[in-house]
Amino acid sequence: MTKEEMKEIWKVPEPTLRRLPWYLAFVKLLKGKGETFVSSTLIAKEINVDASQVAKDLSFVNISGKTRVGYEIDTLIEVLEEFLGFTSQHKAFIFGVGSLGAALLQDTGLNQYGLDIVAGFDINHEITGTSINGIPVFDIKDFPRKQKEFGATIGIITVPVEKAQEVTELIIKEGIKALWNFTPFRIRVPEHIVVQNTSMYAHLAVMFNRLNSMDQ
Amino acid sequence: MTKEEMKEIWKVPEPTLRRLPWYLAFVKLLKGKGETFVSSTLIAKEINVDASQVAKDLSFVNISGKTRVGYEIDTLIEVLEEFLGFTSQHKAFIFGVGSLGAALLQDTGLNQYGLDIVAGFDINHEITGTSINGIPVFDIKDFPRKQKEFGATIGIITVPVEKAQEVTELIIKEGIKALWNFTPFRIRVPEHIVVQNTSMYAHLAVMFNRLNSMDQ
Repeated sequence: MTKEEMKEIWKVPEPTLRRLPWYLAFVKLLKGKGETFVSSTLIAKEINVDASQVAKDLSFVNISGKTRVGYEIDTLIEVLEEFLGFTSQHKAFIFGVGSLGAALLQDTGLNQYGLDIVAGFDINHEITGTSINGIPVFDIKDFPRKQKEFGATIGIITVPVEKAQEVTELIIKEGIKALWNFTPFRIRVPEHIVVQNTSMYAHLAVMFNRLNSMDQ
Repeated sequence: MTKEEMKEIWKVPEPTLRRLPWYLAFVKLLKGKGETFVSSTLIAKEINVDASQVAKDLSFVNISGKTRVGYEIDTLIEVLEEFLGFTSQHKAFIFGVGSLGAALLQDTGLNQYGLDIVAGFDINHEITGTSINGIPVFDIKDFPRKQKEFGATIGIITVPVEKAQEVTELIIKEGIKALWNFTPFRIRVPEHIVVQNTSMYAHLAVMFNRLNSMDQ
């Protein structure tokens, strides 16, 4: 990997990484309509972001537009999908196959975006030994052994709040590098571990509050 | 509603609304351990947020701590749950019962946080007429009629990207006030409509990128 390529990966700000999938979804839509080129101005207008911001965000991606016609759509889709990691498969385990965990196992959409959930773990013997959507659910006791077998890099945490920290420590110990935390608990991790929090409940709280404000 | 109470609802910044559920999860955990009081210093330490930030966040909520002992846990939980809207039921419809939509219908956890999903809508006749987790799935054509019957205020959007804007316009027309958008598409809405974007794919993109950076 060249110095230039490393710079690309390291320097991408989180807001850019959050906006790029919006651009990708929009240009895929244009492709479906038979379009072949797109300008950053058009993306900006549709996404409701400054055109200069779109150009800046796209500057992190290895693609250059042509004056007047803009970016070639096929290439932009390909380059964005690869840049965002959606074209490589990332092996993941899911910890806690309760209501939300089981729901995520059933969402085949995640697989198309590069998340390959290879197994689930739980302590409930009514669930362990079964499989959901073709994905086996094991007893958490078997996790260290299964990790040697599968070598997952991502752990999806959907356990109850009171187990979140304990499970976090267990899975880091076995070599998981990134945690996708769906619990409303702030898990604590060493510096070299990646944490992505997706709290559905926090999003609900924001929505309920804004909805109440509108009612006034 | 007094002027003071209105002020409370209107003035809450989004980052505060996102942090309050963390505090709630943590104090519930303490309650489970038999604790009766909690200080903002302890919350701050556990959540990894400044103590002054915790105190400021909690100042939006109608509760006061006692010098030295802090907040009474039972009261704090009760007040936070009510403030965040988790104790009232908000009727919601889900639009698009594909992989993610069906998964959300199965997640009973959302119900415990005040989201009452009363029906799903789709165009696929293999799904319409069935029910998932006891929740009926109707043909989208029946939506205006069902909306008169149920009077939902929230629309959860899990349709394919190319249908997101069209469905958005349809559901706003029938009186839905808040949209929880799970698609990676930036939907456009009138000013008085609340939008909460939860893009799982954007979160995946951030996680994959940080994971790649760590590998260097």
